[in-house]
Amino acid sequence: MTEVGEYAQLDLDRTWRRGYPEAVYCAGKTADQVAGIAAAVRHRTDIVTLFTRAGPTHAEAILVELPRAHHDPVAGLLAWPPDPPVPAGGPVVVLAAGTSDLPVAREAMLTARYLGRDTDLIVDVGVAGLHRVLSRLEALRRARVVVVAAGMDGALPSVVAGLVAAPVVAVPTSVGYGAAFEGLAALLAMLNACAPGVAVVNIDNGYGAGHLAAQIAAP
Amino acid sequence: MTEVGEYAQLDLDRTWRRGYPEAVYCAGKTADQVAGIAAAVRHRTDIVTLFTRAGPTHAEAILVELPRAHHDPVAGLLAWPPDPPVPAGGPVVVLAAGTSDLPVAREAMLTARYLGRDTDLIVDVGVAGLHRVLSRLEALRRARVVVVAAGMDGALPSVVAGLVAAPVVAVPTSVGYGAAFEGLAALLAMLNACAPGVAVVNIDNGYGAGHLAAQIAAP
Amino acid sequence: MTEVGEYAQLDLDRTWRRGYPEAVYCAGKTADQVAGIAAAVRHRTDIVTLFTRAGPTHAEAILVELPRAHHDPVAGLLAWPPDPPVPAGGPVVVLAAGTSDLPVAREAMLTARYLGRDTDLIVDVGVAGLHRVLSRLEALRRARVVVVAAGMDGALPSVVAGLVAAPVVAVPTSVGYGAAFEGLAALLAMLNACAPGVAVVNIDNGYGAGHLAAQIAAP
Amino acid sequence: MTEVGEYAQLDLDRTWRRGYPEAVYCAGKTADQVAGIAAAVRHRTDIVTLFTRAGPTHAEAILVELPRAHHDPVAGLLAWPPDPPVPAGGPVVVLAAGTSDLPVAREAMLTARYLGRDTDLIVDVGVAGLHRVLSRLEALRRARVVVVAAGMDGALPSVVAGLVAAPVVAVPTSVGYGAAFEGLAALLAMLNACAPGVAVVNIDNGYGAGHLAAQIAAP
Amino acid sequence: MTEVGEYAQLDLDRTWRRGYPEAVYCAGKTADQVAGIAAAVRHRTDIVTLFTRAGPTHAEAILVELPRAHHDPVAGLLAWPPDPPVPAGGPVVVLAAGTSDLPVAREAMLTARYLGRDTDLIVDVGVAGLHRVLSRLEALRRARVVVVAAGMDGALPSVVAGLVAAPVVAVPTSVGYGAAFEGLAALLAMLNACAPGVAVVNIDNGYGAGHLAAQIAAP
Amino acid sequence: MTEVGEYAQLDLDRTWRRGYPEAVYCAGKTADQVAGIAAAVRHRTDIVTLFTRAGPTHAEAILVELPRAHHDPVAGLLAWPPDPPVPAGGPVVVLAAGTSDLPVAREAMLTARYLGRDTDLIVDVGVAGLHRVLSRLEALRRARVVVVAAGMDGALPSVVAGLVAAPVVAVPTSVGYGAAFEGLAALLAMLNACAPGVAVVNIDNGYGAGHLAAQIAAP
Amino acid sequence: MTEVGEYAQLDLDRTWRRGYPEAVYCAGKTADQVAGIAAAVRHRTDIVTLFTRAGPTHAEAILVELPRAHHDPVAGLLAWPPDPPVPAGGPVVVLAAGTSDLPVAREAMLTARYLGRDTDLIVDVGVAGLHRVLSRLEALRRARVVVVAAGMDGALPSVVAGLVAAPVVAVPTSVGYGAAFEGLAALLAMLNACAPGVAVVNIDNGYGAGHLAAQIAAP
Amino acid sequence: MTEVGEYAQLDLDRTWRRGYPEAVYCAGKTADQVAGIAAAVRHRTDIVTLFTRAGPTHAEAILVELPRAHHDPVAGLLAWPPDPPVPAGGPVVVLAAGTSDLPVAREAMLTARYLGRDTDLIVDVGVAGLHRVLSRLEALRRARVVVVAAGMDGALPSVVAGLVAAPVVAVPTSVGYGAAFEGLAALLAMLNACAPGVAVVNIDNGYGAGHLAAQIAAP
Repeated sequence: MTEVGEYAQLDLDRTWRRGYPEAVYCAGKTADQVAGIAAAVRHRTDIVTLFTRAGPTHAEAILVELPRAHHDPVAGLLAWPPDPPVPAGGPVVVLAAGTSDLPVAREAMLTARYLGRDTDLIVDVGVAGLHRVLSRLEALRRARVVVVAAGMDGALPSVVAGLVAAPVVAVPTSVGYGAAFEGLAALLAMLNACAPGVAVVNIDNGYGAGHLAAQIAAP
Repeated sequence: MTEVGEYAQLDLDRTWRRGYPEAVYCAGKTADQVAGIAAAVRHRTDIVTLFTRAGPTHAEAILVELPRAHHDPVAGLLAWPPDPPVPAGGPVVVLAAGTSDLPVAREAMLTARYLGRDTDLIVDVGVAGLHRVLSRLEALRRARVVVVAAGMDGALPSVVAGLVAAPVVAVPTSVGYGAAFEGLAALLAMLNACAPGVAVVNIDNGYGAGHLAAQIAAP
Repeated sequence: MTEVGEYAQLDLDRTWRRGYPEAVYCAGKTADQVAGIAAAVRHRTDIVTLFTRAGPTHAEAILVELPRAHHDPVAGLLAWPPDPPVPAGGPVVVLAAGTSDLPVAREAMLTARYLGRDTDLIVDVGVAGLHRVLSRLEALRRARVVVVAAGMDGALPSVVAGLVAAPVVAVPTSVGYGAAFEGLAALLAMLNACAPGVAVVNIDNGYGAGHLAAQIAAP
Repeated sequence: MTEVGEYAQLDLDRTWRRGYPEAVYCAGKTADQVAGIAAAVRHRTDIVTLFTRAGPTHAEAILVELPRAHHDPVAGLLAWPPDPPVPAGGPVVVLAAGTSDLPVAREAMLTARYLGRDTDLIVDVGVAGLHRVLSRLEALRRARVVVVAAGMDGALPSVVAGLVAAPVVAVPTSVGYGAAFEGLAALLAMLNACAPGVAVVNIDNGYGAGHLAAQIAAP
Repeated sequence: MTEVGEYAQLDLDRTWRRGYPEAVYCAGKTADQVAGIAAAVRHRTDIVTLFTRAGPTHAEAILVELPRAHHDPVAGLLAWPPDPPVPAGGPVVVLAAGTSDLPVAREAMLTARYLGRDTDLIVDVGVAGLHRVLSRLEALRRARVVVVAAGMDGALPSVVAGLVAAPVVAVPTSVGYGAAFEGLAALLAMLNACAPGVAVVNIDNGYGAGHLAAQIAAP
Repeated sequence: MTEVGEYAQLDLDRTWRRGYPEAVYCAGKTADQVAGIAAAVRHRTDIVTLFTRAGPTHAEAILVELPRAHHDPVAGLLAWPPDPPVPAGGPVVVLAAGTSDLPVAREAMLTARYLGRDTDLIVDVGVAGLHRVLSRLEALRRARVVVVAAGMDGALPSVVAGLVAAPVVAVPTSVGYGAAFEGLAALLAMLNACAPGVAVVNIDNGYGAGHLAAQIAAP
Repeated sequence: MTEVGEYAQLDLDRTWRRGYPEAVYCAGKTADQVAGIAAAVRHRTDIVTLFTRAGPTHAEAILVELPRAHHDPVAGLLAWPPDPPVPAGGPVVVLAAGTSDLPVAREAMLTARYLGRDTDLIVDVGVAGLHRVLSRLEALRRARVVVVAAGMDGALPSVVAGLVAAPVVAVPTSVGYGAAFEGLAALLAMLNACAPGVAVVNIDNGYGAGHLAAQIAAP
Repeated sequence: MTEVGEYAQLDLDRTWRRGYPEAVYCAGKTADQVAGIAAAVRHRTDIVTLFTRAGPTHAEAILVELPRAHHDPVAGLLAWPPDPPVPAGGPVVVLAAGTSDLPVAREAMLTARYLGRDTDLIVDVGVAGLHRVLSRLEALRRARVVVVAAGMDGALPSVVAGLVAAPVVAVPTSVGYGAAFEGLAALLAMLNACAPGVAVVNIDNGYGAGHLAAQIAAP
C-alpha cells in the first residue's frame, strides 16, 4: 500500500489480487491531490491506472505529471500507461441511445478496453426509431455482453435484452429534464426491465458499466 | 343537478353540455351510497352512466337497482343502459403489455366504447418480444388513437409512438414489484418517452385513458 | 438516415413516414454538434426541422448555418425553413396560467404551428382569478384541443377540462418554489385532475405538448 | 394533570389555559386505553372532550363509559358532553370537494362546532363543475373562515381563495389512487395554491382543520 | 383589468373585491417585465402593490420607475406607495427561529404591515434554547396570530402552538443542509405539529404567511 | 458458531467478544425458525438472548421452549434468562412523547436493562405541553444518556438536547398519519435537530436505541 | 407463439432463440390463468418452464396440471419438467446476508440451476460478523459469478466485490423496516457500491438475479 | 444573553450550563454578520467558540477580528481561542472511508478536540479493501467512541460496529453521484446498519458527529 500525502492510500497490489486496474475518481478531489496520485504511479507502467470524472483542471494537472497519458475529453477519462492491453476475452458492444449519452458510453467503452477487452461503440439507436437498433442486430448478437447507456425513459435495455442471449449492462444517464429527475426515471425503468438479463449500475456510471462488462467478458 | 342523499350531486345535464357520460367512482363510496346513485339514474336511459372501480360488493348493490346493467368484473365496471351507443368517430386500439395489465386495458376499452367509439383490444405485446408488437403494426396504424397500458418499465408507449402517426395515450399500471413502486417507474418512463406524441394519465386510470381516447377520436 | 459526425443519425425520412418534423433537442448537445446538424439540413427545405431548448450559444451557432431560420428567444426555439406550413386540421388554443409559464406555452404554440395547425395563445388566466378564464370561454370552446401550461398548484387543466368538450393537453411547468419541487406539484395535480380528458406531458415539455396537440387536431 | 394508567397524562386544565377542549387521538391507542380515558372524563362535563379517529371498537368501548356521548360514525368522532357549546365568534363554512371527502369534512365541521362555532357544510362542489361552487358564492362570502377538504388534484382551495376575502383552511384528503400518493398530490397543490390566504394542515386532518378554523373565527 | 405588454394582466380591481393588495412575484419575470408593471401602477397610489422575491436587478428596474418605493433588501420586497396603511385589526407577531430565517420572517412581517396590521418581529428563539422563547411569552400571548419561520427541524411552531391560544402560521424555510432537503424536513414537521392550531404555508413563503396572518387578524 | 437448521448461525461467542447479548429479530422469521433458535439457547443461561419484534405467534412458540422467559407484550420482546443483569454503568432515561410511542419506548428501556443498565421510563411528555417535560428536568439531568421516542413532528429530541448535557438517542416512531409518512417526518426532524448531541436510529427501532444507550452508558 | 385463453401468448420458441426457459410470473395472475398456462406446457418437456412468485393457491392449481413439477415453497417457485439440465458453464455461488433473505436467495439459486448452472448457497453471512464471510473466501473465489441477496443496509455486495475478481449480482431484498423503505435503502447502497463489479437487479428479484448469473456464467 | 446587531443572540452562558462551546454556523450568514459575532467573542477566551461551514469569505472576515484564531480550511472551521482544552475523557477515533470524506471527518475530529477529547484520524479505509480497516483494528478497539464518515454506499459503519464494542457515530457524506442522491443512499444505509450500536447524524454534519462523540466520551 502506498500512502499519498495524508489523503489517500494507493492499493496497486490489489491490481494483482483482483486482476484489475486502480481507478482514481477525480470529481471529489482537488487538482493537487490528483496530481500527487499521478506522480505516484508514473513509474508503475506494469499496471493500468484510470483517472475518471476528470474535468479540464484535473486533466491539466495529470498531464503535467503524465504528459503521454491517453486523454479522452468527452469521457472525462485519462489512462496511464497510454496503450490499452492486448484484447482478450469476449467482445464488449456499447450502445448509446442518443447523442447526449455519448460521454457515459465512451467512459464505459474505454474502461472495458483498458481492462483488456475488444470493444465496439454504436450511437443514436433509441427505441423511438426501432429500425436503428434492429439494423445492428448482427453486431449485437456477436457480443459476449452489451452495455446500454440511455437516459429519459430508459427503454432501450429492455428492448435489447429481448433480442440477444448475452447479458445486458444497463447504465442510466442523467440525460433529460423534468420528470427524468436526473436519471431516476431511466434507473427505475431499467430495474423493472420486462426482459430478464439486465444488470443495472448507478446513474452516469460509465466506468462501473465498463468494468462490470469487462469482468463478465473475461477470458 | 340532482341531490342524492346528503352525499352527492348528480350532474346529468353536464352529459349534454360536455357530451359525455356521468361516471361514478365507486372505490371511495359505500355500497349504500352507490346503490342510491344507481336508483337515481334508473330511468335516465338517454344518458350513459358508468360505475368504475366497482368491487364485488358495489357491483351487487348496483345490480339490485339496475339488474340489466352491463357488468365487466375484470374491469370492475358497470354500464347503464347496457348497450353502448352506435360507434362514431375514429377507431380506438387498446394494447395491454402483459396479462396483468388486462383489468386496466379493459376499463379503457369499455369506457371508449360507451363513449361511442369503435374499439379493439390487443393483449401481451410487451417490448421484451418486439415481434409481437411488430406483427400488429397494420392494426395499430389504422387507429385514430392508440391506448397503451403497461407496468414495470413502461417502455411500450415509446416504442409504439415511434411506429405510428396517431397520438398514444399511455396509462401506467401498478403491475410489478420492488422498484416499480406501485406504477411510479412506468409513470416516469412514459412522461419521459423519447418519442413525441405520448399523452400520460394517472396510474391504473383505465377510465381516464378511455375517456381521453374517445375525445381524441371524436367525430 | 444521415450520419452527422460520430454523434448523431438524422432520420429525415421519418418525417415522411410519421408525417412530422425532425426535432433537435439542443440542451444536451454542444454548439458544435448543433451547428453540424444545422448544416446537414440546410438544403432540406421540404421538411421542417425544429431546434428546441436552444440557449443563446446554440442559437448563435445555428444562425451561422441557417441565417434565415425563425428564432423565438422566449421559447428557445428555432425553425427551418422559417415559414410554417399552411394551417390544416382543427384549431389549437394554448393557455399560460401566468406570465412565468410563457416560455413553455410559446414553445407549445410554435411547435403546433410548425406542425401545420392554426394556433392561438392566451396568457395570465390562472384559477386565482376565475373571471379571467371564464371570459375566454368562447375561444376555448372553438378549439379542437386546448394546451394548458401551468406551474405551482397546476389547477388550471382541471378547471378547463370541466368547461370544454375537447381534450386538454396539460404541461406542468417548473414555475414556483419550495414544495413546488421543480414542477412536481403541478405534475401530480394534473395526473389527478378531477375532470376526465386531461393528457399530461413532462414538466416544461412545451415541444411535446405542441406536438401532441398537433396530432390530436390533425385533419 | 391527571395520570390515566401508566400510559397517559390528561391535561384538562390546559382546556382553561388555552381555552380549547382536550382531544384524544384513538387510532394509536387500544380500546382499553381509550375506555380508561373516557372513564376519567365522565364527570368533567364543564370541559369538552373529543375522541377522534375512533373506529367501531373504540366507539363501543367509549360508549360503555359514556353512553350519552355524541357519536358521528362517518367522522369517527365522539364528543363528551354531547351538546356543543352555544355558538360564538364568526361562522365556519366547510366544503367537501367530493362525496369521498365527507368523513374528513364532517370531522372538521364537528370539531369547529364543539369548539363553539356556528358551522355549515357544503358537499360535492369540485372544480370539474365550477357552477357548483359558484352557485354557493353567497354562503362562502358570509364565512369568517372557509375549510376546504379535497383529494386528487387538490385544486378547490386555490379557486375558493380567489373568490373570498376570508382565509381558507385547506385539508388534503387521501382520496384518489395512483399518483395521488395517498394525499401527497393534493397536499403539494394546496401548499402551492396560486391565490394567497390558504392555510394547509396534514392529510386527512379534519380535526386540525376544524380546530384551526375555530381559532381563526374566535370571538 | 389592465394588460401589461403581452405577458401580464394586472387585476387592480381585485384589490377592492378581495380588499387586499396586488402582488407581483418577480423571481419568474425579467427585469423588463417587472419594470413594465411598475410603470403601470405608478399612478395607482390608492392601492398597495408589493413586489416580492425581487433580486438586485429587479429592485433596480423597479426603483427607476418608482424611485420613492419602499425597498427592504433582506426581504427582497418593494412596496408602492411607500407608506403602509394605518394599522387596523389585531396584532401580528412574527418569530424567526434563527438568524438565517430572517429574510423569510421579514417578508412575512412587511406583507402583514402593508396589508394594514400592526406587527412585531422577534429573532433567534429556536427550541434548542427554550428560555429564549419562554422569555417572550407575554408578547406572544398578546398576538391575534403568530407567524413562525423556522428551518432545520421545524420544531418551533409545535412549541409555540402549545403556549398560546391564537392560531400559528408556520412557514418552513430552506435553512439547513443534508437531510433538511431544502426545507422538506421542516415542512413535514410543521404539518405533523403535535399541537393543534398550526397553519402551514409553502417553504420560504414569507409573503403567503404574512398575507394569511393579515387575513386572520383582520378587523 | 452454532448452526441452527439451514437458516441461521448463532454467534453466541460474539457475546463475549463484543460484550453484548445475541438478539433474534423475529419479524422476518417463521414461528418454527424462532422456536428452533429458542431451543438452541435454552441451556446458555450465562448469556442474555433477546427476541425482538415478536408477535403473539412468535411469543407462543418461544414460550413453549423457554416457559420462564420474560415476555413484554407491549414491547413485543422476550428475554432469556428472565432476570436482567445487576445494573452497572450510568443511568438510562427513556422518554415517550405520547402514549402511542410506548411500544418503542418500552423496547428501548428493556433492551438497555438486559444489557445491564439502570433504566427509567417517562411517558406522555410531548412538546405541545412543555410544562410536562420541564417538570421532569431533574430526572433528565441525572441521566448518562436520554432516549427519546417520538412520532409526528419529532420535535422532542431537539428540546431535550437543549436542556441536558448528556447525549440524546432519538428514535422516530411511525406514530402519526398522512404527511408523517410512516415516521419519515419525525426521522427528518431528528436528523435536523437544531441542538447538537442527538444520535438518530431507524424508525421504530427501540431495540437499537436501547442498545446504543447501553453502550454509551457503559461503565 | 401459443395463445392461452384471451390473456397470454406463450413464446416457447423464444426458448430456442434466446436459449433460456419461459418464465411465468404468477403474482399478477389468477389461479385459473396460471393453471391454463400449466396445461399448455404439460407436453413440452424439452423446454424448462419456471413458475415464479407462486403463492399456495397458485402452486396448488399448477400441481393439479403438473403433479410431478418441482415445487420449492420457500422460493415460491415451481419448475417443469422437474429435473434441472445437466450443469454447464461456470459455478454460481449465492449468498444470503440473513435468514430473512432466504426466499430471494433460493429463488436465485433455483433459477440458475434450471438454466443449467452448477450452484451453491451460503446463508447468514452479513457484514456485522465479517468472520462469517471471510471464512467462506475460498468458496467465493471459485465462483464464475456471485449472487448476493441482502436487505437492510445492503452492505454485503460492496464487501464481496472487494474480495473476488468475479462479477457480483446484487439483489436487494425488502427485509427490514422503517427507513429500509421496503428495500429502497439496500437498493441505493448497492447502486453506490464502492467496489466496481456490482450488477444490481430489482428489489426481491431472485429470479432476475439467477437468470443474469446464469447468462454471465454461460459456457 | 448577548444581542449581536438585530440578527443574533449569543448564549455564552449556555456554555456553562451545558458545558459545551458556542458554535456559529456560517453558511447561512453574511460575512458581516459573522464578523460581528467574532468581534463579540474576542475577549471571551474562557469559552471556546467554533465557526463552522466557513467559506473563504467568512474565514477572512473572522480572521480580521480574531487574527490568531485556529483555521482549518479543509474542514471549513475556525476556533477561538486557538488552543484546544487539555484532553479529558475517553479517546475519539475518526475514520474517513475515502479521500473525499476528509472535510467532514476533519470537522468531526476538530470539534471533538475543541470539546476536550483526545482524537485520532484514519483516512481511506473503505470496505472495498477490507484489509485496510482490519489492519487498524487495534486502534479502533482502544476508542471510547468511533466516528465514521462515509458517502456512496455508507457501508463502513456496519462493518466497524461489528468489530468494536464502543458505540459508532455514523456521519453520511454527500460524496458520490447519481443514485447517491446527495448522501441519501449513505444515510439510509447507516440507519439500517445490520449491527447495533450505530448513531446517525445529518448528512455532512461533521460538527454534530464530533460534538456527539465528545459527549459520549465525556469523563
